[in-house]
Amino acid sequence: MDSVSPIDWNAVAADLAPIECLADRASLRAKSRDFFWYSPVLNEKLKGVSAELVVCPANEAELIRTLAYCHERRIPVTPRGGGTGNYGQAMPLRGGIVLDLLKLDRFLWLKDGVARVEAGLKLIDLERHSLPQGWELRFHPSTRRTATIGGFIAGGSGGVGSVQFGGLRARGNVLGLRLVTMEAEPQALELRGEEVMPAVHAYGTNGVIVELEMPLARSWPWREIIVSFPDIGGAAAFGNALCEADGIVRKLVTVCDWQSAQYFRPLLSHLKSGQAIALCVVADPSLEAFETLSTAMGGTIVFQRDAAEADDIPPLYEFTWNHTTLWALKADRSITYLQCLFDGPDYLDKIARAVATFGVETPMHLEFTRLNGRVAAFGLQLVRYRNEARLYEIIHWLEANGCPVADPHTYILEDGGMKTVDEAQLAFKRRTDPLGLLNPGKMKAWSPACS
Amino acid sequence: MDSVSPIDWNAVAADLAPIECLADRASLRAKSRDFFWYSPVLNEKLKGVSAELVVCPANEAELIRTLAYCHERRIPVTPRGGGTGNYGQAMPLRGGIVLDLLKLDRFLWLKDGVARVEAGLKLIDLERHSLPQGWELRFHPSTRRTATIGGFIAGGSGGVGSVQFGGLRARGNVLGLRLVTMEAEPQALELRGEEVMPAVHAYGTNGVIVELEMPLARSWPWREIIVSFPDIGGAAAFGNALCEADGIVRKLVTVCDWQSAQYFRPLLSHLKSGQAIALCVVADPSLEAFETLSTAMGGTIVFQRDAAEADDIPPLYEFTWNHTTLWALKADRSITYLQCLFDGPDYLDKIARAVATFGVETPMHLEFTRLNGRVAAFGLQLVRYRNEARLYEIIHWLEANGCPVADPHTYILEDGGMKTVDEAQLAFKRRTDPLGLLNPGKMKAWSPACS
Repeated sequence: MDSVSPIDWNAVAADLAPIECLADRASLRAKSRDFFWYSPVLNEKLKGVSAELVVCPANEAELIRTLAYCHERRIPVTPRGGGTGNYGQAMPLRGGIVLDLLKLDRFLWLKDGVARVEAGLKLIDLERHSLPQGWELRFHPSTRRTATIGGFIAGGSGGVGSVQFGGLRARGNVLGLRLVTMEAEPQALELRGEEVMPAVHAYGTNGVIVELEMPLARSWPWREIIVSFPDIGGAAAFGNALCEADGIVRKLVTVCDWQSAQYFRPLLSHLKSGQAIALCVVADPSLEAFETLSTAMGGTIVFQRDAAEADDIPPLYEFTWNHTTLWALKADRSITYLQCLFDGPDYLDKIARAVATFGVETPMHLEFTRLNGRVAAFGLQLVRYRNEARLYEIIHWLEANGCPVADPHTYILEDGGMKTVDEAQLAFKRRTDPLGLLNPGKMKAWSPACS
Repeated sequence: MDSVSPIDWNAVAADLAPIECLADRASLRAKSRDFFWYSPVLNEKLKGVSAELVVCPANEAELIRTLAYCHERRIPVTPRGGGTGNYGQAMPLRGGIVLDLLKLDRFLWLKDGVARVEAGLKLIDLERHSLPQGWELRFHPSTRRTATIGGFIAGGSGGVGSVQFGGLRARGNVLGLRLVTMEAEPQALELRGEEVMPAVHAYGTNGVIVELEMPLARSWPWREIIVSFPDIGGAAAFGNALCEADGIVRKLVTVCDWQSAQYFRPLLSHLKSGQAIALCVVADPSLEAFETLSTAMGGTIVFQRDAAEADDIPPLYEFTWNHTTLWALKADRSITYLQCLFDGPDYLDKIARAVATFGVETPMHLEFTRLNGRVAAFGLQLVRYRNEARLYEIIHWLEANGCPVADPHTYILEDGGMKTVDEAQLAFKRRTDPLGLLNPGKMKAWSPACS
């Protein structure tokens, strides 16, 4: 069958039976989209994207059968987890099949702090298994309740806990993965250690991740705390001091100015209008030292809760990382955001300069992290969007002022965080997807000539 | 009774009955000494120091009775834990009574990662209680098997685990302490948070610590590993890279050149003659990443063991921190050591310059640590001692080259790590020991006029 011939998708579904296939409009739409609409640029480019068929393999054998079938017929296949990406990572640019991996959700084993799980397992379900044994994820995106572990590894980078353990690219944060290739006879490859890197944050372009071996962290009793500060400078200085306090165990240090925090509707009754805040998750035994430090730095604790406590306010992490933008978008669809890195010995000065330069045009939102053993902050500033030209003016100013931007307004792998072609990633794709059928259109360096 | 009148120590013991008192020569000698003989300078000055009586209260009531009695008779009292100090911290310079606190050894409670214990509890016994509940000390000196928690707080600073949690001075690493004052009616004070600081590393000069509230760390399954490197530069670079690898969980990173390592008799069959080594304690789930990193940096793993495994080789931590010097002293009594800090963005260069300048005269020994959120290394170099003048030449070179020295050749509090008078410590002593009877002769800033 030639790749340009029209495909009879009912026949494909029939051929794949008993593998579950979805072809109704609602499913096709739901499973073809992610949170790309955070970006007005991507919204314009991707809003029409749709798969022709959603295939939901229940196990590796069904997955292999699906891939072999698609390889033979040259059908593009885009793997998908929870669909919580922000740059169209799992959106099928060339149509074809979306491979829904949510049924591959087995928790395989946990031993000495290492968990082996299937890729479609949701993060929250992974922890449902591990927490009773005293282990938790080292870090997770703010979409912990809906994202899958495979989706996080293939499309994410860090999150809640990175202030302690760094991100996915830090050595030792992914121990192994099992990945199925897109070939006439799909192979299941077991990768370990550094070998996993080409498949991490590759959007599933170079293989379908089916299992992961993740090192966990010992779980702590955590407290959620919000501290209010008169201004963003004070809140950022506190975030830095908290991260430099080696004796205080913390999992999350997020700082927002009032321009960002004003959108946190469920929190508003606790916040002081006009003030900046630090949203923190701190270990119980560190609570007193945390309080002393926040008071010493001019902060006022305005909210405090046992992280395990359930009430009508969502978990604090659902106001941080990419959720911060979501709260703003709920109130004002014209808002978008940035992703930049404030790093180096003068990183607090860089933050201050960005605030002074753009003011209310880019409401400040900082996520403190550990990066190569040092404290740094990601800037996930909101942007009161005017047009694409102005957006890139801001981006260029940041880059010119020593703050590298991981552009969240592109679906192209290399134009996002990495900027350059990842040769290892490309070489790996040549081996695992010689026809370029996996998530086509995302890896710029790829062309049929590559194979 | 006047303080210069001769004291009848048998009568004192009789007065204090039924509180246990020891007056035999062997006990007086054993309980009046610590590891001051690490330093030839201190050895000369302190070798004749002895108490007249050792008093061993079994509880706080007996302790208070002892202090009130000594206050009335102006008898100097020097509190003592396991006697594992290196600078005569617990040696009774003015004679009098040594207060042996080993009977105050109750483990009071453990809740949400915080342990409340009596000061005389040995570190190993504290962990015997806490480990089954999943908690361990955040850091401990290499004398874990003999030191008490009170002695560590009063005379120590950091140790095995500081590479993760910093030291005792880092905010949040001591939550509270109970301390008895030296007054006519001794008071038990409860100090919390920052209030504890004047009593930390004060050698018991401003109160007798009777209870401590310590924040613990979640325990991990640990592995002990030794990696061999062709030279000290490679080993130090590895130590730094390991500490900068946010995804590798480590508790101990010690680096020794061959000049230091050659004295580790029980390890010698595993070591490569002439090579530098890194002695590491790493969490089980980080083992693979550790191996990859060590290989990538030119290292060879020469020893590996489950930290919980018992065999004829002592725990690896007993070759690190101040134990490193002990192994050398067992072979060569002319050796002594230094304590300096290699810090700042160029700290590896500082280490290289010290090595190049002093070579085999100061066999290199590094303890990596976290300090205010950054990676740094303490230099606990051995010194092939010639004379005091040369020793201070080396010290002055280090200080002139940006490596502050915490002089381990003085028993004076202010001449050790701090260099300046700690006003808070002094002010606290005015309140808790107005007659200056506690461990007299250690706090230089103190004079009777102070009271």
